[in-house]
Amino acid sequence: AVGSKVLTTDTMNPSVKKVEYAVRGPIVQRAVEIENELKKGAKKPFSEVIKANIGDAHAMGQQPVTFFRQVLALCSYPELLNSPLFPEDVKSRAGRILQSCGGGSIGAYSASQGIECVRQDVAQYIKQRDGGIPCNPDNIYLSTGASDAIVTILKLLVCGEGRTCTGAMIPIPQYPLYSAALAELGAVQINYYLDEENCWSLNIGELRRALVDARKHCNPRVLCIINPGNPTGQVQSRKCIEDVIRFAAEENLFLMADEVYQDNVYADGCHFHSFKKVLFEMGPQYSNTVELASFHSTSKCYMGECGFRGGYMEVVNMDSDVKAQLTKLVSVRLCPPVPGQALMDLVVNPPKPGEPSHATFMKERTATLRSLAERAKLTEQILNTVPGIHCNPVQGAMYSFPQITIPERAVQEAKEKGQAPDMFYCMKLLDETGICVVPGSGFGQKEGTYHFRMTILPPTDKLKILLQKVKEFHMGFTEQFS
Amino acid sequence: AVGSKVLTTDTMNPSVKKVEYAVRGPIVQRAVEIENELKKGAKKPFSEVIKANIGDAHAMGQQPVTFFRQVLALCSYPELLNSPLFPEDVKSRAGRILQSCGGGSIGAYSASQGIECVRQDVAQYIKQRDGGIPCNPDNIYLSTGASDAIVTILKLLVCGEGRTCTGAMIPIPQYPLYSAALAELGAVQINYYLDEENCWSLNIGELRRALVDARKHCNPRVLCIINPGNPTGQVQSRKCIEDVIRFAAEENLFLMADEVYQDNVYADGCHFHSFKKVLFEMGPQYSNTVELASFHSTSKCYMGECGFRGGYMEVVNMDSDVKAQLTKLVSVRLCPPVPGQALMDLVVNPPKPGEPSHATFMKERTATLRSLAERAKLTEQILNTVPGIHCNPVQGAMYSFPQITIPERAVQEAKEKGQAPDMFYCMKLLDETGICVVPGSGFGQKEGTYHFRMTILPPTDKLKILLQKVKEFHMGFTEQFS
Repeated sequence: AVGSKVLTTDTMNPSVKKVEYAVRGPIVQRAVEIENELKKGAKKPFSEVIKANIGDAHAMGQQPVTFFRQVLALCSYPELLNSPLFPEDVKSRAGRILQSCGGGSIGAYSASQGIECVRQDVAQYIKQRDGGIPCNPDNIYLSTGASDAIVTILKLLVCGEGRTCTGAMIPIPQYPLYSAALAELGAVQINYYLDEENCWSLNIGELRRALVDARKHCNPRVLCIINPGNPTGQVQSRKCIEDVIRFAAEENLFLMADEVYQDNVYADGCHFHSFKKVLFEMGPQYSNTVELASFHSTSKCYMGECGFRGGYMEVVNMDSDVKAQLTKLVSVRLCPPVPGQALMDLVVNPPKPGEPSHATFMKERTATLRSLAERAKLTEQILNTVPGIHCNPVQGAMYSFPQITIPERAVQEAKEKGQAPDMFYCMKLLDETGICVVPGSGFGQKEGTYHFRMTILPPTDKLKILLQKVKEFHMGFTEQFS
Repeated sequence: AVGSKVLTTDTMNPSVKKVEYAVRGPIVQRAVEIENELKKGAKKPFSEVIKANIGDAHAMGQQPVTFFRQVLALCSYPELLNSPLFPEDVKSRAGRILQSCGGGSIGAYSASQGIECVRQDVAQYIKQRDGGIPCNPDNIYLSTGASDAIVTILKLLVCGEGRTCTGAMIPIPQYPLYSAALAELGAVQINYYLDEENCWSLNIGELRRALVDARKHCNPRVLCIINPGNPTGQVQSRKCIEDVIRFAAEENLFLMADEVYQDNVYADGCHFHSFKKVLFEMGPQYSNTVELASFHSTSKCYMGECGFRGGYMEVVNMDSDVKAQLTKLVSVRLCPPVPGQALMDLVVNPPKPGEPSHATFMKERTATLRSLAERAKLTEQILNTVPGIHCNPVQGAMYSFPQITIPERAVQEAKEKGQAPDMFYCMKLLDETGICVVPGSGFGQKEGTYHFRMTILPPTDKLKILLQKVKEFHMGFTEQFS
């Protein structure tokens, strides 16, 4: 009818309506409101909002890596190639990237799969990381952050309806990109629960339970792994990865390995093992058959360059006709952002010993990773001093995901407000302290348990104060509702 | 079964299989092959491949705008803020952008809708462009190129199945992002044909015919317009835009206006009229009701910065609950690339008279637009000297889309090869001359007519040689198959 809207929530795409993304959900909207209130001079028991909801290192004050930014400046404004301000390795690297761009400009489109020399450098990096196991640049696809590539692979895999509809196994707790993408694509989300009692480890029995259950109502085709874990911070053992690969091979599942935190491993005795490496070391029975896509990004690790939206994936054992379809699909969006591709190149091919920028680069990288390890430890320690909070060791990644005890009276009050109890808790924490964290319900958790995700990214001094405030808040909250 | 692939073209997403994107299709793959053959020393009747298939100005040698790149260099490496190399307006602009970034770094995530000060500048630009009609920054969404925003709006609109399935009206010839997105989303593509006899103008009678036909089998909800036209180069008259808006209002259609070539208007008497402006000047009956999304980008116009993937859309009269859903949906991908957002800011807010960078900026901008106008004219003129080629005036955008006569014997030979006749033609053109253009069948055309799309972007001298080669090729081809 004339005058009524074409597009309303009643007439919009119902799959989009089902999408949820807690990391930037209602809690963050409230945080922005409070920030605006503070700007307008409102009186609060705190002077600033601390956004510990998202893994955004630079926003928390981490400084960019000098070498990366120098090269990017020269790529942006090549006149600087003649300036004495920059070391030779910066200049030669910028020159190499520019040479591989159309017309020598990062303003030209690249190949849709990504700039060829960047894909070669990525392949070289993977080969070296994985102890010499070969990597073919044709299997590398650059992407707009890892999210883009993850959604693309899920998109390829989705088909069927009802009992034949593609099911994707995801960890619970999970990073909510997975649930959001599956909702949007109309695929079935199959939850497998990580074992909180055992430091969020992945249990093959639980994988099998979830798969057997799911086979009753859909067609499970893909198994998603996040290692190191987000939001849970565990680092998988080599043994566990072998078990997962064997399981995927037996059950004919496509493996998606989200490895964006591969440099963020802090705990003694923990090491990052790539799925690709373990797969190849298990011998040809596996390395020639198991289909794997693994994902990396410029946004995490020691560089934390989220804003550039750089990333790549490697596809292993992908059917060659499917690869042609994948290449076609990514070509519709023309290409990933070229500055992000340039940055990805620098991440996988940093300064080498003997080059002028090497010492500074190593100093910056080491300082950041050392400090992150310190903050991971600190977070675990302080949170575990609070009665009613239990925090597993933050072995890797950038988050703690403590379990919190919420008194029954608070649970009731939350329910009356139509809120998840941990959302009620986090909203109160935000209102009283200015600290913004994400309720565990946004990631999924065992029925009846409550958590929140908090980044370890605030600078150490600030983090200490923040953890002390969480402690006081939790004790007050418990008292208030007991 | 163990050993068989999980993901094959038989078991992949059938909607993805249906996607086609000719601008980077088989013709471009062949072009890359030939380039590699040339590199390996193969002897060809030409020494280089000229990629006239895609609107990629920098790849064709266009130089970046100095002011834009200086500011981007300072944003990348803020140490340069203290360097005497840069004018004061470059420094203050970079400082302003950095201040609006988390932690003062373009490596931080921005708000998912885009950096607030950039959205304000975009709103100010639109207001000024449209003669003072207000624009609310809350209606601006920054995006990863215009493609990203276009797909997002289509995604919101798609629902239903069979006769209730969303139909989207698109021009034929079209830019194949539209057909690709509709195929992927499982929506119905409704073709309305532009009038080649009348310089590719849009005819309301034809819109109505297409709509009435479509209502028999789907639910038409959205009308897409590309102005200036891609691939067809026409610039819509104000009267035509009014008619389209009236039609959309009467028929309850959501309007999508692809206006990425808004500065690329060359022909005497042609002017760019934004849909937003015309809508508001038609009075409250329209301006308060008709739902519109309009799209812009950093990739075209005089700047041609494709690699940065910058863009924005303005939504007008969008239901506020739908806007909340839109904001949620874009938050899943975190944010558009921040360097692209920074660049978009510079495009909508270039140096002002009296500022140190103003003169150079104006000189660069004017020279590029003047040269594009010259090349548009030149292309039309030379192509129209060829018997069997007819080219409408290139009023705007960056492409000619001439109609070509293909002899019946060539049509037969193409059919025997299972190729579209214009693909057969373009492949031969590529093999014999090294010139890469896109067959009209990739954009859609009236049954029995043949075209190709060629950019006007090669530098004038090169363009002349290229057009001469096309002429010779066409005459030889015609002779060969007559």
